Amino acid sequence: MKQWDTVAIVGVGLVGGSIGLALRRRGLAARVVGVGRRASSLRRARERGALSAATTKLARGAADAELVVVCTPVAQIVQHVREAAEYCPRGARITDVGSTKAAIVASLAGGRLQRDVSFVGSHPLAGSEKQGPQFACEDLFQDRLVIVTPSRRSRAEDVDAIEAFWRALGARVVRMTPQAHDEALAATSHAPHLVASALAAATPRKFLPLASSGWLDTTRVAAGDAELWRQIISTNRTHVLKSVDRFARMLSSLRQALADEDQEEILQLLQAGKRHRDSVGG
Amino acid sequence: MKQWDTVAIVGVGLVGGSIGLALRRRGLAARVVGVGRRASSLRRARERGALSAATTKLARGAADAELVVVCTPVAQIVQHVREAAEYCPRGARITDVGSTKAAIVASLAGGRLQRDVSFVGSHPLAGSEKQGPQFACEDLFQDRLVIVTPSRRSRAEDVDAIEAFWRALGARVVRMTPQAHDEALAATSHAPHLVASALAAATPRKFLPLASSGWLDTTRVAAGDAELWRQIISTNRTHVLKSVDRFARMLSSLRQALADEDQEEILQLLQAGKRHRDSVGG
Repeated sequence: MKQWDTVAIVGVGLVGGSIGLALRRRGLAARVVGVGRRASSLRRARERGALSAATTKLARGAADAELVVVCTPVAQIVQHVREAAEYCPRGARITDVGSTKAAIVASLAGGRLQRDVSFVGSHPLAGSEKQGPQFACEDLFQDRLVIVTPSRRSRAEDVDAIEAFWRALGARVVRMTPQAHDEALAATSHAPHLVASALAAATPRKFLPLASSGWLDTTRVAAGDAELWRQIISTNRTHVLKSVDRFARMLSSLRQALADEDQEEILQLLQAGKRHRDSVGG
Repeated sequence: MKQWDTVAIVGVGLVGGSIGLALRRRGLAARVVGVGRRASSLRRARERGALSAATTKLARGAADAELVVVCTPVAQIVQHVREAAEYCPRGARITDVGSTKAAIVASLAGGRLQRDVSFVGSHPLAGSEKQGPQFACEDLFQDRLVIVTPSRRSRAEDVDAIEAFWRALGARVVRMTPQAHDEALAATSHAPHLVASALAAATPRKFLPLASSGWLDTTRVAAGDAELWRQIISTNRTHVLKSVDRFARMLSSLRQALADEDQEEILQLLQAGKRHRDSVGG
């Protein structure tokens, strides 16, 4: 007997496709139904082996699912969770993979939906600037962190079930409130994205042919989909602004030290950055 | 007959060690003499096969060299070039691998030294945040860009010889004035380094365990040696300040658009960053 009978994945891009691949290759679900807007993505995901069935109708895809994983862009998640909750079986569980959590969880009444259907938010710290099921990979979540963000209204058994789902995919799970998640991710992901985008945009075009590994690394995330990132930073606006301001103050200190030729201060600030970077590794 | 008889490498870290490995594995030099301060680095470089001889005395290492490549930190390059010029054979050629060029070339009287010894500056766009001959690699320069920066006083045959040296190591060569080099590299390397350092330093320690691939990429260069980078940005201060200010203005526009919830403007700025990043690839 499989751990799940039917799992529905709404949105079969890199992340959704990888969830499907992991569920099927690990023998965790009897059926993995993909729900997508475009037949071409669904076909590619099926060809990769990520799905056992596919449909463009959420109502149909959710009909037999005991678990629905919503992998669509942040701005669409609430709507897709609501639709899934309407059509899935009584008592089904829904989660998502959105990069912000507080606004989504708040819009969904803390995750207690109709007919005993529950929503508990998730955010797997996996994925990349690449998009589409062609980049899906069954090990995408192996040893990666997934943040699960219950609300005060969440039932313990629903939270446990969602955490068990991610662990079955190989992930390490951390539990945080939606607010704590958004504050932390503003600092570790959303503000860095704005910094990388601004750096790429500010580099004069005529100098781009001289970009080497340092520039490529520092700006890599700026290649991510602009509309997806617009949604992410907009739904986490307050925390992102705070993180950007904290960064801007640090850069301004470093700039001032350089302007003042204060060599000791420059060195100390560079060392502070190196200490944080070295402590993370990778 | 080899392309060079004796090449001396002053400073056998990642870059110097890789030059030695490339020269020897490609059969380009009869002798590669390493000059270093620490016997342990010289020993490691010899063990890697990067050197045929090693000494801690620059006077001795340069004595028979028709080509001297100075691979020491930016702040020491001028001194090491002067010492090499004093002890090397008449008519020998000297180059370096420093990340800034204008201050070095100016300090060396445009590269016309005593006894027909010449200096022509170079900057290979290779290397990484890693240091030491243990990371040396004979293909470090393969298909990489090397910027060669003659002054108005440089002789054509000296410039050609230094360019031929880098091409023999597999590199593509671009010729620029020292000033044009420093302006461009401020934008593509030195300012990005300050941005990455400030971002790493500004990320609150308590959130670091949640850093994932985006943060790791964006801050990677901040792991570089702080003192080496202090020297680089300090010797290219004016251009770096200008590039940092250009970046700060772009970030400020993006921040303001987010604060104003001007979704169209946010999207356009993110798209501008993506266009620059996509145009470079990699």
